[in-house]
Formats: sequence, structure tokens, C-alpha cells
Amino acid sequence: MIKQEIINQIKKKQSFLCVGLDTDLTKIPAHLLKEKDPIFEFNKQIIDATYDLCVAYKPNTAFYEVYGSKGWEALQKTLDYIPKEHFTIADAKRGDIGNTSTMYAKAFFETLNFDAITVAPYMGEDSVTPFLKFKDKWVILLALTSNKGADDFQFFEGDKEKLFEKVLQQSKKWGDDENLMYVVGATRPEMLQEIRKIVPDNFLLVPGVGAQGGSLADVCKFGMNKNVGLLVNSSRGIIYAGNDKNFAKKSRIETQKIQEEMHILLNNYFIHN
Amino acid sequence: MIKQEIINQIKKKQSFLCVGLDTDLTKIPAHLLKEKDPIFEFNKQIIDATYDLCVAYKPNTAFYEVYGSKGWEALQKTLDYIPKEHFTIADAKRGDIGNTSTMYAKAFFETLNFDAITVAPYMGEDSVTPFLKFKDKWVILLALTSNKGADDFQFFEGDKEKLFEKVLQQSKKWGDDENLMYVVGATRPEMLQEIRKIVPDNFLLVPGVGAQGGSLADVCKFGMNKNVGLLVNSSRGIIYAGNDKNFAKKSRIETQKIQEEMHILLNNYFIHN
Repeated sequence: MIKQEIINQIKKKQSFLCVGLDTDLTKIPAHLLKEKDPIFEFNKQIIDATYDLCVAYKPNTAFYEVYGSKGWEALQKTLDYIPKEHFTIADAKRGDIGNTSTMYAKAFFETLNFDAITVAPYMGEDSVTPFLKFKDKWVILLALTSNKGADDFQFFEGDKEKLFEKVLQQSKKWGDDENLMYVVGATRPEMLQEIRKIVPDNFLLVPGVGAQGGSLADVCKFGMNKNVGLLVNSSRGIIYAGNDKNFAKKSRIETQKIQEEMHILLNNYFIHN
Repeated sequence: MIKQEIINQIKKKQSFLCVGLDTDLTKIPAHLLKEKDPIFEFNKQIIDATYDLCVAYKPNTAFYEVYGSKGWEALQKTLDYIPKEHFTIADAKRGDIGNTSTMYAKAFFETLNFDAITVAPYMGEDSVTPFLKFKDKWVILLALTSNKGADDFQFFEGDKEKLFEKVLQQSKKWGDDENLMYVVGATRPEMLQEIRKIVPDNFLLVPGVGAQGGSLADVCKFGMNKNVGLLVNSSRGIIYAGNDKNFAKKSRIETQKIQEEMHILLNNYFIHN
């Protein structure tokens, strides 16, 4: 998928929401456990209930791998079920030496046909660039994550900059805003201003709104650019909004609340800027 | 598996070799492609040809994920086939926020029953410690990798130390030499001396000998400790030693060469130290 298609979809739906499919058998409604493929059945109903309100879906691979080859099948079926207009992100946090990263890229871009994959930067250029060689596919590189452990290394201070700033600066040489996005957690919205100075045009994937406590208004205030430039993710807040036969209806209600807030924020931003 | 079992096996076999199972359908002998599960058939013959000469096997998950659920099945069968005395490493380079890392830990330690998994440190403490909560299981944390891209961030210089040194220092608080090993590439053996000052007792998993150009003698000179403390990996040099019906025999010959060199190095080291 190319950047303009993402922007068009945001404008059409007045939403820059990404729904995270962290589907956990211990958390989904009990009646689904009787289904042949409970994970897929749950995802299917969540997708049916939310697709017109969001622009992206982000399955988290850990939640599928935990069920071995059956989980991998559920992931494949989920991906096939997501409407073509949606941007699909494998939240996989991969990254390895060149020939291995190429294999991961094939796994997620060809075998599974995702549009994007999250990649960890620790191993540097030759661990990231193999993913960038696939046409109309995206790397979403970890820059500043939403968890507490982000403090351990991402803020490690060099002469001129912090590690996450170095990651942003260095990776700009490997790709551009047509194939490279960054993960920036909503739990540190004040950092978005600094980040926008380094990567003004790239889309940012922002986790941490909702269950992790980040504010959507702050994320927009500090992170939005002229093409919106944000994909804000919510996982648990949406998919586990209910836990009975009406779970999909409840997840739609939660999704709608976020979409309406996004609609207002989009209008405010594009009127006042 | 506990540390003493690894040490016992090294002494018994006079080998600290880990065989990397980066099994690629485009590289295995053509006659195997007729088999129902060519990846497993290849791995089975490699294991049969090498098991008495090595102490660990390390399947690289990318090479299985690329074939989707079928690849995951081949990985499961491979793991079930590896003799129980061998230390098994999922070279997966995972790491995510806490609840997700817990799912990855379950995927690799429970669903697949690996002894160890490689983990990327970028997201810090709460992305690593969930793996450390599993009894007799191991985290092998990326410290200094063998690829060129290691220069991009791992040598990022702070006030007192480089990033990879910070990773070693910080992670020592999260685990100990009974559940935490480190990846240190053989392509930078001179760094092993410095690394041993920080983590004298932890085992190091050392890739990069062979195809990537590292020297086994140098790795031992700078990295060995009183319990050997090294697992040296070779993947392509062993598993692709041959490409015809005799491929397993040829991989045994290559494995034997390394084991014999290791036997000599072990004797030299423990006589002179």
C-alpha cells in the first residue's frame, strides 16, 4: 500500500485508528471456545464490527505463535479476512542479520501479505534494509516505545543525542516517508515535538492510548503533521470491551467513541493549522 | 536445562559447538524436495550426522516462518527430534512489552519446549524479564552482534560506556549466569576481553565463526572462562557443506573438523590456565 492510500482512507473515514488484534484465548468470550477456530472467529467478529471506523489492523504475532501452527493458520485466515482497503501491520518486532531479515520479510510480506512489519533497530542497517526492498511494503521501526523499560536504553545519552534520536537520524538514510514509519508511544506525548523535528513527514504508529494511559488529544497536539501522519493503536480497550455474546457490539461502541474523538481532532487541527 | 548439564555435556563431548538450523528450501539438496516435509527431513539427517559432536542446536525461526503454518510444524517436529541432552535455542530475536513477551515465552518455552530464546534488548527490562520467569529456561540477550550494522547503535557512546556495555551492565540486574547468556559475535573477538570483565561467568553464544569470518582460536583466547562459558555457533558452514545425496556425510566431516579443533583448544586452555 502506498502512503496516499493511507491518507485517503483517513480522510474518508475521519479516523486514524489502528485496531490491535492481540487475541488471547483466556480473554475472549467463553462461548467462542466451542468454535473450530476461536481466534479467527473472534477476530472476524471484531473486524465486522469495526472495519468502517478504523484504517488499519495490527495483529500481534506473539498471540498467534503461542498456539503453534494452528495460531499461524488463524493469523493467515485473519489477514485474508481483513478488507483490502485496510493497512495491515504485523506487530512482530523482528530484526536479524541480512539473510535472516530477508526471510522474515518474505514471511510477512509474501507468505502472509502484510503491508507493514514492526522492526527492532538494535542490529542496525543491514538488519532493517532487507525489509525496505519490497515494493509498497513498510518498515515500522521502534524508536520510543510506550513501556517502562524504554528508559533503560532508548534514553541512553550520547554526546549529541539520545539513542532513540540516533535511531531516527540514522534510519532516515535507509528509507523515506514512503516506506518507513516509526513506533512512538503515546505515554510520552511531550517527546513527539522533538521527534517531529527529526522526522517531520514520516507516519508514526502510536501505541499506548487506552489501557497504557496515553492521551489522544496530546498525541495529536504534538505529533500530527500536514498529512495527519499518525496511526494510533488501541488493542485491549477495543477488543476486550465486552466479554459476553454482545462483545462485538461493545467493541464497536468503544471504537466509535475513539473515531468520534478523532473526527473532532482532525477538524480542529486542519481548521487551525 | 541447568547450567551444569551444559558444562557436563561440553566435557563429555569435548565440544562447545552449536549447530544452526537455518534450513532454506532453495539451498537443501534437490532430492529432498520430493519428501513430504523436506525441511524436517533435511534437519533429521543433519541431526543424525552431528548429534554426538555438538552440544546445542539453534533453529532460526525466520527460516520456518517463511513457510507459514507448515514451517511452524517442521520446527515443532525438528525440536521433538533433537535428543534430550542437547541444549535447544530458538534464534528468534523477540522482545516486546511485558504481556506480549510473556506470550512469546509461552510460545517458545511451553508450546515448543525450547531451552532458550534469543531476545533483543531495545525495549528494556519489562521486555526481557517475562522470559526469565520460566524455570530452567534461558534468555540469550543480544549484546554485540556479528553483522556490520552492529556499528550503527551497539557502539553508540555514552559518558561512561558504549550501548552494548550498558546492555550487559543493566541486564545483570535482571538475571544471573543460571538463566542469562549473551550473544557476542566472533567477528569482534578482541571485544571479548572487555565483555568478560563485565560478565565473567555468563555463557556467551558466539555466532560468526565460519561463513562470517570469525576465528575460533581467538574467540577461545579472549572469551573462555573456567567453565568454558562459550557456545560457538556454525550454521551454513556445516549444514550446506554438501548439496547432493551425501550432504549429511559432508556436514559430519565439517562438524568433526570443528569438534577436533575445539578438543585441542579445550585441552590447551585447561592445561595453561
